[in-house]
Amino acid sequence: MTVRIAVAGASGYAGGELLRLLLGHPEVHIGALTAGESAGSRLYEHQPQLVPLADRVLVSTTPDELAGHDVVFLALPHGHSARLAAELGEDTVVIDCGADHRLTDAGAWQRWYGGEYSGSWPYGMPELPGARARLHGATRIAVPGCYPTAVSLALAPALQGGLVLPEATIVAVTGTSGAGRSLKPHLLGSEVMGSASAYGVGGVHRHTPEIAQNLSAVAGTPVRVSFTPVLAPMSRGILATCTAPVVADVDGAVAYAAYQRAYADETFVRLLPDGSWPATAATLGSNAVQLQVTVDADAGRLVAVSAVDNLTKGTAGAAVQSMNLALGLPEATGLTNVGVAP
Amino acid sequence: MTVRIAVAGASGYAGGELLRLLLGHPEVHIGALTAGESAGSRLYEHQPQLVPLADRVLVSTTPDELAGHDVVFLALPHGHSARLAAELGEDTVVIDCGADHRLTDAGAWQRWYGGEYSGSWPYGMPELPGARARLHGATRIAVPGCYPTAVSLALAPALQGGLVLPEATIVAVTGTSGAGRSLKPHLLGSEVMGSASAYGVGGVHRHTPEIAQNLSAVAGTPVRVSFTPVLAPMSRGILATCTAPVVADVDGAVAYAAYQRAYADETFVRLLPDGSWPATAATLGSNAVQLQVTVDADAGRLVAVSAVDNLTKGTAGAAVQSMNLALGLPEATGLTNVGVAP
Amino acid sequence: MTVRIAVAGASGYAGGELLRLLLGHPEVHIGALTAGESAGSRLYEHQPQLVPLADRVLVSTTPDELAGHDVVFLALPHGHSARLAAELGEDTVVIDCGADHRLTDAGAWQRWYGGEYSGSWPYGMPELPGARARLHGATRIAVPGCYPTAVSLALAPALQGGLVLPEATIVAVTGTSGAGRSLKPHLLGSEVMGSASAYGVGGVHRHTPEIAQNLSAVAGTPVRVSFTPVLAPMSRGILATCTAPVVADVDGAVAYAAYQRAYADETFVRLLPDGSWPATAATLGSNAVQLQVTVDADAGRLVAVSAVDNLTKGTAGAAVQSMNLALGLPEATGLTNVGVAP
Amino acid sequence: MTVRIAVAGASGYAGGELLRLLLGHPEVHIGALTAGESAGSRLYEHQPQLVPLADRVLVSTTPDELAGHDVVFLALPHGHSARLAAELGEDTVVIDCGADHRLTDAGAWQRWYGGEYSGSWPYGMPELPGARARLHGATRIAVPGCYPTAVSLALAPALQGGLVLPEATIVAVTGTSGAGRSLKPHLLGSEVMGSASAYGVGGVHRHTPEIAQNLSAVAGTPVRVSFTPVLAPMSRGILATCTAPVVADVDGAVAYAAYQRAYADETFVRLLPDGSWPATAATLGSNAVQLQVTVDADAGRLVAVSAVDNLTKGTAGAAVQSMNLALGLPEATGLTNVGVAP
Repeated sequence: MTVRIAVAGASGYAGGELLRLLLGHPEVHIGALTAGESAGSRLYEHQPQLVPLADRVLVSTTPDELAGHDVVFLALPHGHSARLAAELGEDTVVIDCGADHRLTDAGAWQRWYGGEYSGSWPYGMPELPGARARLHGATRIAVPGCYPTAVSLALAPALQGGLVLPEATIVAVTGTSGAGRSLKPHLLGSEVMGSASAYGVGGVHRHTPEIAQNLSAVAGTPVRVSFTPVLAPMSRGILATCTAPVVADVDGAVAYAAYQRAYADETFVRLLPDGSWPATAATLGSNAVQLQVTVDADAGRLVAVSAVDNLTKGTAGAAVQSMNLALGLPEATGLTNVGVAP
Repeated sequence: MTVRIAVAGASGYAGGELLRLLLGHPEVHIGALTAGESAGSRLYEHQPQLVPLADRVLVSTTPDELAGHDVVFLALPHGHSARLAAELGEDTVVIDCGADHRLTDAGAWQRWYGGEYSGSWPYGMPELPGARARLHGATRIAVPGCYPTAVSLALAPALQGGLVLPEATIVAVTGTSGAGRSLKPHLLGSEVMGSASAYGVGGVHRHTPEIAQNLSAVAGTPVRVSFTPVLAPMSRGILATCTAPVVADVDGAVAYAAYQRAYADETFVRLLPDGSWPATAATLGSNAVQLQVTVDADAGRLVAVSAVDNLTKGTAGAAVQSMNLALGLPEATGLTNVGVAP
Repeated sequence: MTVRIAVAGASGYAGGELLRLLLGHPEVHIGALTAGESAGSRLYEHQPQLVPLADRVLVSTTPDELAGHDVVFLALPHGHSARLAAELGEDTVVIDCGADHRLTDAGAWQRWYGGEYSGSWPYGMPELPGARARLHGATRIAVPGCYPTAVSLALAPALQGGLVLPEATIVAVTGTSGAGRSLKPHLLGSEVMGSASAYGVGGVHRHTPEIAQNLSAVAGTPVRVSFTPVLAPMSRGILATCTAPVVADVDGAVAYAAYQRAYADETFVRLLPDGSWPATAATLGSNAVQLQVTVDADAGRLVAVSAVDNLTKGTAGAAVQSMNLALGLPEATGLTNVGVAP
Repeated sequence: MTVRIAVAGASGYAGGELLRLLLGHPEVHIGALTAGESAGSRLYEHQPQLVPLADRVLVSTTPDELAGHDVVFLALPHGHSARLAAELGEDTVVIDCGADHRLTDAGAWQRWYGGEYSGSWPYGMPELPGARARLHGATRIAVPGCYPTAVSLALAPALQGGLVLPEATIVAVTGTSGAGRSLKPHLLGSEVMGSASAYGVGGVHRHTPEIAQNLSAVAGTPVRVSFTPVLAPMSRGILATCTAPVVADVDGAVAYAAYQRAYADETFVRLLPDGSWPATAATLGSNAVQLQVTVDADAGRLVAVSAVDNLTKGTAGAAVQSMNLALGLPEATGLTNVGVAP
């Protein structure tokens, strides 16, 4: 099987990570690489790490350039996907790494993003209950946000099992690549290095409704979410500390057992041995989520901590994993749960 | 006025920061510098940044070497302070940067540290209600822990003003220097750089009872504390994200006004302009706490975020500030609220 | 004595560092703070570390705003200084942190910068032979570039003493702040962290002629310079590795002794004890150059390595040091050779 | 074909990187994993990134444990390889990542390492002239040092082509992982982050004779080497700046053309497009060397800059590449020239 793929937004960080993974995917032929302002330049100017594609010329992000591929990955700013997808043919698999088709609630879209709502697509987080089935054979897939990936998988077993009340307080530390290649002063190396900083505080980060949507679905009841992101001096990685009030009689052993059951068969979710806690470095470049859970009896809270590479499992890896499911390939093809460390 | 000072533990990170500040203090004469295993070596081997003291020879940490100084700073592992202090004379000002005399509850000491309880000393966080008065003329001072500094000042106005329920969930990101110059694999640069990692999760970090003690005192009622530390790839800095359930009718403006009132006269607490959020880099090498507060109405929680330099305001700066109060010097002598950035 | 100062370019990194130092200078009153595009904004938006000046409003960089000060610091892009200085009055001390007045050779200016040559001003590196005398009472001062500072002081004793041939090969590692707050992709945290990269290779960096000028002056003969800068993942700091062919009979001891003699009386040049090698962290926020020298007999080369903080001794510290000399103040006023480490 | 491999020293950084690569190698079965002090522990305690091998128990590094494998990788401190290899059977392929069998000159071994000289083995840098042929069918292979890899490939075409005089001045910036998981104070994150530092200055680094050996071989005449390593705040990566006096009439175009010819057929050497300069991040986790060359006419020097991942192409990647050659597998099996960036 040879899958002809195209990547729209190949000059950005998500696009580059997609191509890194696809270069190692045995069934893929890499076709058109498109960009906005960077159209006409060669790929090495933007992605010097992608040696085999160095001399590829970026073309404009248009339906014509994207036509004729089996799979089209969209790594574009939000609001750009729906129109493109509409012109791509229903049998083309369109995998949107942006936010456009993640939210199932039109009102939430309006509040958090604004503009026309384009509906929701099957959600590319196979490890959530019921999600895998919806991805088999899908031709439209919404890749989850990086924070929602780290948070949802960290809390799903607790909420699904009724171990905690539907009220989560989450602080997630992220590397800077989550913001993309944006030329903003607070993303300059000089500002970032040696500094941790808060942003999007007070429930205003756009990943909040996506987190609430996922957690509420697994809990079967609305989950109230307090979410605070923190920027740390590293390029990649998210470490999410997720807590919720524990219900009576749930101790650490009960919680650990529930997580073991939930993820026993998941290649890309690694529940660490008891007593070990995750570090983002161990997930670098990998599609794995590493996590651990315990109960703080004094505080009456379950505490789950997860680590992911925001560009891999948090974006491009989930996209490839979803593509594999959509096409009927083995789910892990071209992916690894092995990180590049130290 | 010339204050003769000695530093016990001059080869460590806290000791080095004390000396950095004391070199800039106009009323201080730096006397004995003591160490454990490093006794006999010269200071530059451990503190190459302290050029004026480079050739000083470290002597052994004994009462004899520490005698004859007006102020003795102890920057030692916990459990070493009480015995030394007992031999130092009641009129010597002894300022303990360790944990030995922070906890007011003997049971808490037993549970969290173990071994003989040495009682509590006046607590060196002048910005807490009532603390400043107890430091005037004190001859024994317990310097707060770095996390309790960041957290207590971030939540005190909310708890004191009854804006929140007595139940705090805190995640604090820290640089590696908080762990001291310990030769542990997880503190190696190769492991730390590019990685955020969890440790002390589930309410087991020893700063938890100190945080609870401070918050309960300002609240006037026991405060339940969920505290999770996170290690980030930077040498210095703590960014504490502190949340608590908000009581009815408290919105962001009410909270901000309460914080303004609480800290209007504090040189070393900087409430940022509305909309600005703290970054640790802005506090590097300074004695300032920078903070901001808001209310997340969806989540029903107040969120306060504070940034400190764990070695300065979080340790050595608080020690010097407390010394100034103890000796009747202007509180800010030798200290600054200006950070070294970027 | 109260010196009224103004800073043109107060929103940038050099401007911020100037203000940090001037806030600690006992004889200075901080007057106008000017900016280009940022005029009208408050300083805290750009320099959150400068708490005491947080609410200062930036005004436009015009001669009118800068008039009426005893000293005007220019922290502007090159090519902007001469015109402003011409309107500032001859008795105003103008200290230019830019490159405009560093080169003594008009042809070199044309080749390396282009545009009209504005002549050279007394050069603000007091530790070079003869430089201090020219700074006493000066009203126009050119602050050296950061690389030339690290390199010139590392090689001056060897060249002046005739220990080496006039042919230097230099590789200098720098932090990102040397590039200023420029919004360029290769300066983004995501690109910088975890990466060392070459730039300006092959003798094309604009600091090359300034280095050659300084080295040639101390050598008394033209010195051929091979200079390569390397960008490292840190915000501040330059580590310059400087080598030159050694003349017969010069060994490490001879070289060390020459450096000892050259810098015995210099507060801000620290020749490390034999066997110690510099690290940039030890100079963070300080006005010190830390250096060491040896001879590699196999290679037949003298190797000198120096560390500086590019924003302090490499820019703003040298500016303040020069101001002190110009005004007849003690040279070290408001400056320190103590770094913020770890 | 299934190659049964063992790794001696599986708890260290080189051992971990070997296993990361071997997990992705289609012809390999991973057998015994051995360690010294860590024998008896599970691999996840040391290599949390290697999820599929997490529960493997480390056994002692003895000939018995290593017997019965087709290929044995030695990732041990120097001086440990010869004795082990002697007991492993002549048809076992032994690949030594240590220094023991790199130097062809017994006197050089004595001077730089000391102790008994064990002779030299075929040298695992296939891209050097003549090296590939010696690796086909070899059963003993010496993996090059990380610095010699970066430097030799950067200068080989210039020396082989007679473009430069046999006299090289090299400064190489390295990440901390090159020092292994050594518990030394100067390798702590707190000391490393935010700091560049010199070490092994003056021609005393042990990779110097290996560099000289390689360069002299390609030049056909002894090459005088000045080599200075610099420690930078990153975990992985070497950026080597290599200069040598250029002979008459050699300009940048001539040099570039020579490098193009030399590396036209090499998968793992990437000569960048004219005007682009390497960054280590683009090689992270990859087996590629990225490099560029130019001539500085003013200085009369050729300047070549190369970037490698010290743990991949600098160690474990070269080991796997050499194994492939030894076994007659396609040279690039299990390896990639694609880096993990940003």
